[in-house]
Amino acid sequence: MHDTPIRAILFDVFGTVVDWRGGIAREAEACLGPKGITVDWLAFAEAWRARYQPSMEPIRLGTRGYQRLDVLHYENMLDVLDEFAIEGLSGAELDHLNRAWHRLSPWPDCVSGLNRLKSRFIIGPLSNGNVSMMVNMAKHAGLPWDVVLGAEPARMYKPRRETYLIAADWLDLAPGQVLMCAAHNGDLAAAASCGLRTAFIPRPAEYGPGQTSDLAARYAFDHIANDMNELANQLGC
Amino acid sequence: MHDTPIRAILFDVFGTVVDWRGGIAREAEACLGPKGITVDWLAFAEAWRARYQPSMEPIRLGTRGYQRLDVLHYENMLDVLDEFAIEGLSGAELDHLNRAWHRLSPWPDCVSGLNRLKSRFIIGPLSNGNVSMMVNMAKHAGLPWDVVLGAEPARMYKPRRETYLIAADWLDLAPGQVLMCAAHNGDLAAAASCGLRTAFIPRPAEYGPGQTSDLAARYAFDHIANDMNELANQLGC
Repeated sequence: MHDTPIRAILFDVFGTVVDWRGGIAREAEACLGPKGITVDWLAFAEAWRARYQPSMEPIRLGTRGYQRLDVLHYENMLDVLDEFAIEGLSGAELDHLNRAWHRLSPWPDCVSGLNRLKSRFIIGPLSNGNVSMMVNMAKHAGLPWDVVLGAEPARMYKPRRETYLIAADWLDLAPGQVLMCAAHNGDLAAAASCGLRTAFIPRPAEYGPGQTSDLAARYAFDHIANDMNELANQLGC
Repeated sequence: MHDTPIRAILFDVFGTVVDWRGGIAREAEACLGPKGITVDWLAFAEAWRARYQPSMEPIRLGTRGYQRLDVLHYENMLDVLDEFAIEGLSGAELDHLNRAWHRLSPWPDCVSGLNRLKSRFIIGPLSNGNVSMMVNMAKHAGLPWDVVLGAEPARMYKPRRETYLIAADWLDLAPGQVLMCAAHNGDLAAAASCGLRTAFIPRPAEYGPGQTSDLAARYAFDHIANDMNELANQLGC
């Protein structure tokens, strides 16, 4: 049981706040379609995302030094382009495609819900995305963050503990004064093990109609809400 | 001459965005006045601020490890209380007084000017204040930052070069895409030496009616404006 008040709410971003699958499919088609390339754009997005967790693992294990997510995304993009037999892109075109992750759109409830939550709490991303990615995305999508935290301050990726703990430390808050909000059981379980409070918001369409993981909360999280506005209701905003 | 467009504007905060002298005097009186303490509150504020630069110097020189500004402020506060023969404060009272720096108010032009600048640029503090101080101040004062940068990412204080360079790096911008805005010639000279662009806004009342320093720009800065709205005019916002 917690009796200290929540002061800050930190958010997972990919899947929890923004629809990476639809956004990457849209952006890839916008970049590549005019060049006469036609592939299954949702499959392209899923293939790019499938390389996300494996590419962070050597950094979590300490066998590779910290590289920001833009760098990992770029390496993974080259592999996916090869898999889809897409070639002949210029350096500028590759850079623009890689920054599709900076141009994702939020789920429909997020801007209104985050603005409500911001009225009572410090809000910010605690994402594996790098700071520039989070800032550019916020400008694009209208996400009203007070502060940008996450992988870069810790030079480490979630769910490693220091990622959560440095975020609380930089806000000068005890872990129990910070509420971690995510659509992923594993992220919240790691945050809870560091003493953060937890809010689960299911995003059953994150991986498309065939999604089988994270359809419901698997642990006794402090809050479970269907969207950001319902979380704002629960927190009295 | 610069031909790359400005993408971000980073701001010195104490003196440039907020009136620390009036704010600390007001907050100190609010904390200590009800206890029957009467001193010259503006002199108290000036004495506290006078210890600011000397207290960072061992960290800049590497003879002391990084400590966030809240810690230096606390040490300096104890000295100033002693100087003014103020004693008998509880731990909670000392903490509340020290966090007066989180409750400063902006100069009258700042909220409107920053909102205009935010419409076209990434904006954030590049202050020697720590992240929690900047976030709490922004919530208190209505400062619409997109991102909070400064001493803590670099674990070093301005005008050391890494403070400016890490801020640009975290935004994934070249130094020439970042405009540093300050009321202090030395801060801007250091930023310019790192390749940042510069905007000087004089704050001739920062130190009160007897101010003798930083009354005017001493170098050929890229922009000189009388306040944030005039800077927004110059930048086409």
